[in-house]
Amino acid sequence: MKLQDLKDTSQLSALSFPELEDLAQQIREALLTKASQVGGHLAPNLGVVELTLALHRTFNSPAGKLVFDVSHQTYPHKMLTGRAKAFLDPAHFGDVSGFTSPLESDHDQFTVGHTSTSVALALGLAKARDLLEKNYHVVTVIGDGSLSGGEAFEGLDAAGDYRGNLIIIVNDNDFSIAENHGGIYANLAELRRTKGEAHKNYFRALGLDYRYVEDGHDLQILCQALEAVRDTERPVVLHIHTVKGKGYPPAEKNPELFHSTGPFDRATGKALAAGQTDAATLFGADTERILKRAIDQDKHVVGITAGTPSMMGFWKPERNEAGRHFIDVGIAEPAAVSLAAGLAKGGAQPLFAVRSTFVQRAYDQIAQDVCIDSLPVTFVIFTGSLYAMHDITHQGLSDIPLLSSIPNLTYLCPTSAAEYEAMLTWSLSQRDLSVAIKLPGIYQEDAPVAASCAALAAAPAASAAPAASAAAKTPFSTYQVVREGSKVALLGLGTFLPLAEEAAKLLKEQCGIDATVVNPRFCSGVDKAGLRRLAVKHELIVTLEDGRAEGGFGDKVAAFCGTDSVKVLVKGISQELVRKYSVEGLLEKNGLTAPQLVAEIQELL
Amino acid sequence: MKLQDLKDTSQLSALSFPELEDLAQQIREALLTKASQVGGHLAPNLGVVELTLALHRTFNSPAGKLVFDVSHQTYPHKMLTGRAKAFLDPAHFGDVSGFTSPLESDHDQFTVGHTSTSVALALGLAKARDLLEKNYHVVTVIGDGSLSGGEAFEGLDAAGDYRGNLIIIVNDNDFSIAENHGGIYANLAELRRTKGEAHKNYFRALGLDYRYVEDGHDLQILCQALEAVRDTERPVVLHIHTVKGKGYPPAEKNPELFHSTGPFDRATGKALAAGQTDAATLFGADTERILKRAIDQDKHVVGITAGTPSMMGFWKPERNEAGRHFIDVGIAEPAAVSLAAGLAKGGAQPLFAVRSTFVQRAYDQIAQDVCIDSLPVTFVIFTGSLYAMHDITHQGLSDIPLLSSIPNLTYLCPTSAAEYEAMLTWSLSQRDLSVAIKLPGIYQEDAPVAASCAALAAAPAASAAPAASAAAKTPFSTYQVVREGSKVALLGLGTFLPLAEEAAKLLKEQCGIDATVVNPRFCSGVDKAGLRRLAVKHELIVTLEDGRAEGGFGDKVAAFCGTDSVKVLVKGISQELVRKYSVEGLLEKNGLTAPQLVAEIQELL
Repeated sequence: MKLQDLKDTSQLSALSFPELEDLAQQIREALLTKASQVGGHLAPNLGVVELTLALHRTFNSPAGKLVFDVSHQTYPHKMLTGRAKAFLDPAHFGDVSGFTSPLESDHDQFTVGHTSTSVALALGLAKARDLLEKNYHVVTVIGDGSLSGGEAFEGLDAAGDYRGNLIIIVNDNDFSIAENHGGIYANLAELRRTKGEAHKNYFRALGLDYRYVEDGHDLQILCQALEAVRDTERPVVLHIHTVKGKGYPPAEKNPELFHSTGPFDRATGKALAAGQTDAATLFGADTERILKRAIDQDKHVVGITAGTPSMMGFWKPERNEAGRHFIDVGIAEPAAVSLAAGLAKGGAQPLFAVRSTFVQRAYDQIAQDVCIDSLPVTFVIFTGSLYAMHDITHQGLSDIPLLSSIPNLTYLCPTSAAEYEAMLTWSLSQRDLSVAIKLPGIYQEDAPVAASCAALAAAPAASAAPAASAAAKTPFSTYQVVREGSKVALLGLGTFLPLAEEAAKLLKEQCGIDATVVNPRFCSGVDKAGLRRLAVKHELIVTLEDGRAEGGFGDKVAAFCGTDSVKVLVKGISQELVRKYSVEGLLEKNGLTAPQLVAEIQELL
Repeated sequence: MKLQDLKDTSQLSALSFPELEDLAQQIREALLTKASQVGGHLAPNLGVVELTLALHRTFNSPAGKLVFDVSHQTYPHKMLTGRAKAFLDPAHFGDVSGFTSPLESDHDQFTVGHTSTSVALALGLAKARDLLEKNYHVVTVIGDGSLSGGEAFEGLDAAGDYRGNLIIIVNDNDFSIAENHGGIYANLAELRRTKGEAHKNYFRALGLDYRYVEDGHDLQILCQALEAVRDTERPVVLHIHTVKGKGYPPAEKNPELFHSTGPFDRATGKALAAGQTDAATLFGADTERILKRAIDQDKHVVGITAGTPSMMGFWKPERNEAGRHFIDVGIAEPAAVSLAAGLAKGGAQPLFAVRSTFVQRAYDQIAQDVCIDSLPVTFVIFTGSLYAMHDITHQGLSDIPLLSSIPNLTYLCPTSAAEYEAMLTWSLSQRDLSVAIKLPGIYQEDAPVAASCAALAAAPAASAAPAASAAAKTPFSTYQVVREGSKVALLGLGTFLPLAEEAAKLLKEQCGIDATVVNPRFCSGVDKAGLRRLAVKHELIVTLEDGRAEGGFGDKVAAFCGTDSVKVLVKGISQELVRKYSVEGLLEKNGLTAPQLVAEIQELL
């Protein structure tokens, strides 16, 4: 049977195993063809081809509920549930997201993109079934890498108490995004070595039934194993051994590189020359260089990652070289932050690099363990930009409202690589403040030359001395005037300083207005004295920020100036969820292009 | 030796066991005397008297680092480290906080009040020791209840990989705040039953060494056990069986009631008639009543707690009666939220009640698992008020910036019990929106009668139709005019509607100004049409919110009105951390009394 001819997963039960294996081959071929052309999560999907076929053959989705952890391993699932065209036909490659989405299909239960939530989600479906006296199977698929996240434990622990149908598939390919870290992985290895017979058994210790399947690529064995637990009346863990990258030698050999990939040459596995290296990759390389230099100069310095070392430029060789100066706790952001607090308290100088979309998993630990005691931890926030990750589950648009609401946290916003280097180097050498640094969404080598707001020509003295604030204690605690003008002041935070400059240029050309351009440099609070000077000297202040505006930087500026006569126009991304977007489209939708800004400013003057 | 004569914990090693037991007796006596007079965490502290003595006898704190999880069990530790007077002398009862605090003593490593962080914190101290080539012991004490939190697993998992000195004391009294829930507790019970010999062993499965101590109140046995592991070169779990409430029969019999207590009669254990029941308790009772009624009427409704059932009025009898309509996942806020998402997806109508200070532990799950798919989960946020918990680790001052930054979450702010009931009843009956409800810090039966802003006399039409927003779809999505006036509009959010009314009254008396008073009813976004009308009709809008103002409700109002001529004065709590405060003092410090507001308003007009 051709993959594209499959109309309904119920057809799978009529197929023979050779026919199923043929389907598996077609799926694998489609995965490789599409990924080599447009990139995507390759290795995780290659590892679950047979498992996904067996799941759909055994459980009658969507009546039977399948919940995939992280859901970046659901390409085969999508191919089997009416979405094959999106993998077979280049014209339709863009039809599906990289994650499960109830908007795409009834076979997708949740929009998921963050790890370790699947067992709790599935338990919720199971308990709803009991409350509503319905009758369906609930199955969750969780990778070994996701088990390091605390919520996976919480879900398994809660399941250990439950009595009802719940099948937890542990898809064990002995790999997270990079190699696994944590004691649980020695236990998984022992279970693999003993074919599931070892006395030490994490899952049984939590009260769960347990079975082991050695060959997670043998369809017949998989179907038998699933059949055997299908109607269980208590939660059972089916521990299945698979190979990450299965069937594509370069991915089997280097699953870290092929976890998520750009376009590559299928014959060699070599990446195709990309048009442009993205900002996050360049800032990752910078981070590696600055951190490595700091470690060389200061034995106190230590880098921390929660399962994404290559994001900060630490691939295997760099990790090995750094030794105990580089710690990967696995996908466990809360523990990464508390560990950093402990390291700082013990005299070390920790840096934790984390994506904007994941830092929100550790808000509590940042606020409590680090910031109440003002411990000198440095957080580097990657991909907090509309230019970065577009998936609805991975957008980095909330970190400004989120992190700038934490007392005692200084949130710095460099506009260029040079400014980032200065801020990071300073932060790693001081012991008084908890600091976060938001990387811009666009990579610029240098920031424009700037002067302090205090130097504003003929500026009146601030009406009151600014209250002492955490930000006031840093070398970056004052707004910098990049270009001094009048009438309008444009505050371009981080990514958007170039946009402020562009708008200023256009204002001059079109309206003859010499606008002031300011680099605010931080967004935790405001530079009260600098902002007061700007308010007195201008009719309109425009704030530009790369993230959701509500509760963000501009709102603070507007509130601070709320009783002044100066007007404040706050520009950022609107609060509503955007599922899919083009950068240009989103900028335009939010009035964040230079011509739109000029038009809006003209109207207000 | 008298407790108050102990100058240094090094003196403990010179004491005989009978002398140590006598000290234990003094500590227990002091715990009971103080708690019966002023309240506090009683039962957890009664359970660790001997353990704390043994720890200080064995480890040379502060050279040896002791880290206490949650740290509400550190009263004996404080008595032994120079702070006995704060427990013995009523005049000094207020000298110490209820949690560890490095500002109080070098023996306190961290300011801790949230659970499950201790192992990661301690591991950080251990790794700092290795980096800096120092030499000290690191010990952490974690209760069985805290093990249900995912970060405890993350810490244990990371410790399983570590090679160095780290001693993890599991203080097992077979009790969380209420009874324990989760599969791990069956394993702890089996380990207790088998004196640590059971094959199923959660800790060993994570790669940790393990030892069991049956009598956690025998000083000699405890000291021997600690001595035996003191110089371990790899992490070891010492599982110690203790009795919560040990030595005070009413607390042993009802540890839930005595977990944290107000003043009580020592002879009977009966609570002394409190002057006034606090708002949280009254709202807890309301929540129980409304939820119970909803469950009776609708089998879809289900209440969820993360280890604090009595907060929402569900004590043992109510829990038993609710059966599967009430779920306690243990102290595991992330899983509680994902479970709620699963329940909602499965057709149930879940309510998760949680304190403001703890909801921040599940920000990611609320934003991702619940709100992206707009699942109908209702969150009830307790103690999000300056009138509620004062401890620096438990203040509820951040939930407005935090929750109102989540797309697709409607955050409602009732001002009275009647309004809360209307909002909760509505939320439990709808299936379109994710809703959070912020309980006011003051309990009022009824809200004042109000009219919609649309009814403002001679109000001009809104300049533009408001954009569709989640809030616009609720019956509470418009601002309500409680009292119509001119010149000044006071927006009193939640707790602060009475303050707005009081200020309006004073404005009339002192300045002859008839101010408008508005109940905004929600803080996720603004009522654009209503606010536009208010902006046109008034010279000054004053926003009052019970929480940190930066990034909060007033900032949104100020930004919305930033280009209007109306002035906006944003009043709330300032961003800086407040360690200890009186309600009156904090209100005054932030200009939140009616006379201060009137003075500030007069200056601005």
